[in-house]
Amino acid sequence: MYFTYERPEFDAGDPKEIRRVIEEAYVNGKEAAKNGKAADYIPELAKADPEDFGICVKSLDGETIAFGEVEKRFSIQSISKVINLAAALKYLGFRETFSHVHMEPSGDAFNSILKLDTVSDLPFNPMINAGAIQVMSMLSNFMDFEDLMEFARAFCMDEEITLNEAVYRSEAETGDRNRAIVYLLKSKGVLQGDPDKTLDLYFKMCSLNVNAKTLANMGLLLSNKGQNPFTGKYIIHPGYIRTIRSLMFTCGMYDESGEYGVLVGVPSKSGVGGGIAASVSGRLGIGTYGPALNRKGNSVGGIAALQHMSHLLQLNVFG
Amino acid sequence: MYFTYERPEFDAGDPKEIRRVIEEAYVNGKEAAKNGKAADYIPELAKADPEDFGICVKSLDGETIAFGEVEKRFSIQSISKVINLAAALKYLGFRETFSHVHMEPSGDAFNSILKLDTVSDLPFNPMINAGAIQVMSMLSNFMDFEDLMEFARAFCMDEEITLNEAVYRSEAETGDRNRAIVYLLKSKGVLQGDPDKTLDLYFKMCSLNVNAKTLANMGLLLSNKGQNPFTGKYIIHPGYIRTIRSLMFTCGMYDESGEYGVLVGVPSKSGVGGGIAASVSGRLGIGTYGPALNRKGNSVGGIAALQHMSHLLQLNVFG
Amino acid sequence: MYFTYERPEFDAGDPKEIRRVIEEAYVNGKEAAKNGKAADYIPELAKADPEDFGICVKSLDGETIAFGEVEKRFSIQSISKVINLAAALKYLGFRETFSHVHMEPSGDAFNSILKLDTVSDLPFNPMINAGAIQVMSMLSNFMDFEDLMEFARAFCMDEEITLNEAVYRSEAETGDRNRAIVYLLKSKGVLQGDPDKTLDLYFKMCSLNVNAKTLANMGLLLSNKGQNPFTGKYIIHPGYIRTIRSLMFTCGMYDESGEYGVLVGVPSKSGVGGGIAASVSGRLGIGTYGPALNRKGNSVGGIAALQHMSHLLQLNVFG
Amino acid sequence: MYFTYERPEFDAGDPKEIRRVIEEAYVNGKEAAKNGKAADYIPELAKADPEDFGICVKSLDGETIAFGEVEKRFSIQSISKVINLAAALKYLGFRETFSHVHMEPSGDAFNSILKLDTVSDLPFNPMINAGAIQVMSMLSNFMDFEDLMEFARAFCMDEEITLNEAVYRSEAETGDRNRAIVYLLKSKGVLQGDPDKTLDLYFKMCSLNVNAKTLANMGLLLSNKGQNPFTGKYIIHPGYIRTIRSLMFTCGMYDESGEYGVLVGVPSKSGVGGGIAASVSGRLGIGTYGPALNRKGNSVGGIAALQHMSHLLQLNVFG
Repeated sequence: MYFTYERPEFDAGDPKEIRRVIEEAYVNGKEAAKNGKAADYIPELAKADPEDFGICVKSLDGETIAFGEVEKRFSIQSISKVINLAAALKYLGFRETFSHVHMEPSGDAFNSILKLDTVSDLPFNPMINAGAIQVMSMLSNFMDFEDLMEFARAFCMDEEITLNEAVYRSEAETGDRNRAIVYLLKSKGVLQGDPDKTLDLYFKMCSLNVNAKTLANMGLLLSNKGQNPFTGKYIIHPGYIRTIRSLMFTCGMYDESGEYGVLVGVPSKSGVGGGIAASVSGRLGIGTYGPALNRKGNSVGGIAALQHMSHLLQLNVFG
Repeated sequence: MYFTYERPEFDAGDPKEIRRVIEEAYVNGKEAAKNGKAADYIPELAKADPEDFGICVKSLDGETIAFGEVEKRFSIQSISKVINLAAALKYLGFRETFSHVHMEPSGDAFNSILKLDTVSDLPFNPMINAGAIQVMSMLSNFMDFEDLMEFARAFCMDEEITLNEAVYRSEAETGDRNRAIVYLLKSKGVLQGDPDKTLDLYFKMCSLNVNAKTLANMGLLLSNKGQNPFTGKYIIHPGYIRTIRSLMFTCGMYDESGEYGVLVGVPSKSGVGGGIAASVSGRLGIGTYGPALNRKGNSVGGIAALQHMSHLLQLNVFG
Repeated sequence: MYFTYERPEFDAGDPKEIRRVIEEAYVNGKEAAKNGKAADYIPELAKADPEDFGICVKSLDGETIAFGEVEKRFSIQSISKVINLAAALKYLGFRETFSHVHMEPSGDAFNSILKLDTVSDLPFNPMINAGAIQVMSMLSNFMDFEDLMEFARAFCMDEEITLNEAVYRSEAETGDRNRAIVYLLKSKGVLQGDPDKTLDLYFKMCSLNVNAKTLANMGLLLSNKGQNPFTGKYIIHPGYIRTIRSLMFTCGMYDESGEYGVLVGVPSKSGVGGGIAASVSGRLGIGTYGPALNRKGNSVGGIAALQHMSHLLQLNVFG
Repeated sequence: MYFTYERPEFDAGDPKEIRRVIEEAYVNGKEAAKNGKAADYIPELAKADPEDFGICVKSLDGETIAFGEVEKRFSIQSISKVINLAAALKYLGFRETFSHVHMEPSGDAFNSILKLDTVSDLPFNPMINAGAIQVMSMLSNFMDFEDLMEFARAFCMDEEITLNEAVYRSEAETGDRNRAIVYLLKSKGVLQGDPDKTLDLYFKMCSLNVNAKTLANMGLLLSNKGQNPFTGKYIIHPGYIRTIRSLMFTCGMYDESGEYGVLVGVPSKSGVGGGIAASVSGRLGIGTYGPALNRKGNSVGGIAALQHMSHLLQLNVFG
């Protein structure tokens, strides 16, 4: 059964109520997951249990509410695009980064090369494969995987992030479409780094092992203007946060971003590994894990849970 | 000269400072307008004076700050798409409306038919021509122009909105691309009304005479959850506001929406007549008029002014 | 059962053998037709009997060999595009005609508007809808339907061609995609005539009542350099024949033209009414009727029959 | 000055007249070449002298007429696609070959990947890069470069064909778009061989050193049903010739094939090295060399010369 939204007496400020809403979101997400199926384009992803579901909510005042599979590690996949973009903004700056990639939603699938070959030589945005590969080509000139991993750990406030070797090998073996993209970018003279090194780093970053807690942490950092709320350290300059969150909003959920923006209204990024990281500014970081995906490649359970929370906890950035 | 953003001592809460920022935004916009030119796809629009620029900011507590050409009337053009969508949501509901049009940014130009003919039979969103025509086909079955005009006046809190007959005739005479769109929709069996009536209403709504004040009012209503702050009357149910504002954010500035979202970060809708309506939730409605357009069809002056205000008055919805 | 091609002793010059091959072609075509189905995009076409099949072969020396349904009238549909092109060449000349339409195969479906909106403002060739409509817009300025009908009768050496009123009404009622095309051409400023008049003439020409004999006659005229072999009168200047036949070869069988060119190798034009007209230079005109179509819109029986004849009678223009 | 076509007294059978026409074609081609420029996408090609022009005509009865630069060697480029296709037909057969590549003109540029990513997983035809790479992937499983070179020498009746090492290196270094194509094909699961080996062979075959005589020989072999007229040996089965010539006609001149078919009407294949090979069935093989290209990538001089000869010597396959 699904919990519904009509709840006139609901007090969004009451901690008990909040906890109950998150539990309901978990139940809804777990139920909804039955309508999706795990990604199968690489063998490693197909091994995921589509019934797994977990949700972790962290608040800026240090509280954590979690239900279900929040410890199980899975590959971060496209959510790493946020980390790549953050690294580019931090180390290269806004102007340099966006002189090599646009900021527009493409309206096409995440792995599309259509626009790249017809409309524009530069990828449409850093949240689609072509754009993330382009971003990585810039980073590849002065960062190696150790540097990127270190940044990822800081950005996700999770020192236990490791490389999932099996997923990485699987990605590298089956990543021919991304290989096509990198050479298409190179043929247009826009790629900023070596194709092989770029791809290798891109595949590795897609293969980081995270869990729902990691993603909640990432959301929390973004909700706290780039500052680690526990150490007080700024991982990335606050001025870049709006850029990242805005691009998550317009482009973060593949070609379902517009609808998700209406129904959930929280800057989020999903990955085909089953994760979603969401950032509720000044309040929460949310991570969900549910490898059962819908047709657009987004976690069915994650969307259901986030929609429930958004309505009842009034998280929608547009009211 | 342009005013810049480094202003460490700035107090965003001081009324004098706010007024000065808006005046600077006006000066910046007026200056930036020199880099654009008026639309010329219909003769009536080409008559506009590209040096005109005006800005009107209205707050929920009743204050109005205005500079420049805020009284001059011009045709609303694509900003009417917001009114059409609002009318559809009000009279048909969310479910019915979005069973005939999607909610995704298209990544294509506002008048593109590419995706309509390759990806999806339904238009991508109500903010591009195909989507707005589709929305109008639904409305055309039970509303005539008088009804729509009445709704527009209420939605913009401006009883002086009239039909610009010259623009309307010009639109109808040169609207062959929109005519192609309506017949393409009909050929796919998705159009909901009579093609001629639909187009006639669509053209008329594009030809409404508004000014910067009207657009500020529209923004204000959206910032006040659909309620007229002066009469207390709800023009549209609060529950629909997030949908409208979210679609303005992801799709409202043509194929510049993503970049505008990053640089300005306020739900806005522009028209090739030179107007922009922006909504700062719980705070402001903003209208600008500057017929000098950039390559994407957005008012150069309007964007410059809104970017200035967004930075200094911290209007960006993503922080 | 199908007749096969291995026939080492076959004498392609023996009249009895020729007659037998044509009969076999008829049997093959009739059999193959079971794998297709009648067009259903307009109700009138759906009424056709998919089991109907007929073939008529006419030689320049006056002989006619016919089997099956060669008297039954059906609508000419896209085959009229050849007549329209011939009329344009005759009355406007090569240079004027091809300053408004290209000569390239499009690789897209016959009713596609993709290239029209992305690659080129002019339609790719006169054998797709957009190109034929464009050709008709030129003709519409100085020819009315009576003139076109008269030309069609002369070009097909068939005085009994009439307008199929039911098909015409059906076309006009359901022709929204063609309506979209005509307005798209107008919006690009390339259409040469009035949209309504153009479409009306285009629909009427698609609705001409012909039979397999008519189409054989058309093929014969093209095989005789534009000269009526019975009266000696030139219906169209011989210099235009190579243009028409070449475009039939590269573009005449919709997006199956390349494969048909390899397998049959005879300049031909098909229509969704079930007809195919083929021209074997200096030798034969062939008309087939078989309303059972394949996925590309070509008559299944017609292709099977023509392939059989092409192989055994050595009709392939490329040896 | 150009020679024109009005020549009522002309006797196409008189050897002196024929020689004069070919000389005129040479003069026309040399003159026309001034309107083109050499390919510059790889440095080696840009070194060609755009004023070079040569024409070689060989008849089945052993006569050769040649003017201008017919000895100078240049890289065969896309004309090797004909050799690749011939090898595939010879060694794999029609059915196997065309179960991995279509036979349709694409309407797109030779290096387009648009259709590959939107319409069909298989390349449209063997005359565009994607299709030729696909053909090479089949051959790569049992032929190495020595085998292919040997076949090319036999097919072109030219034992002096060698690999142009400089061009090959240049191709390999700058061939990123072709690299993108091979990985796109692999990602769709349709590529039949190893990507690296496939590309290496494809680049090498593009880098064969030929001259106008070589191309005339290739045309002659195709005009003689695959038989070497001097040795009597069949290099490829006669049954495959119509397939090759038909695809040269519909797809051989890039996205200018349709217009070339109308204006010249002879199955031909061009390469960006400046060559054109043409086959006049049962009569002639023609090779031209003129590195000054038009916008579509075809030799300006070659087209002018072939058009002149086609008109006066009545070479047009469609009369």
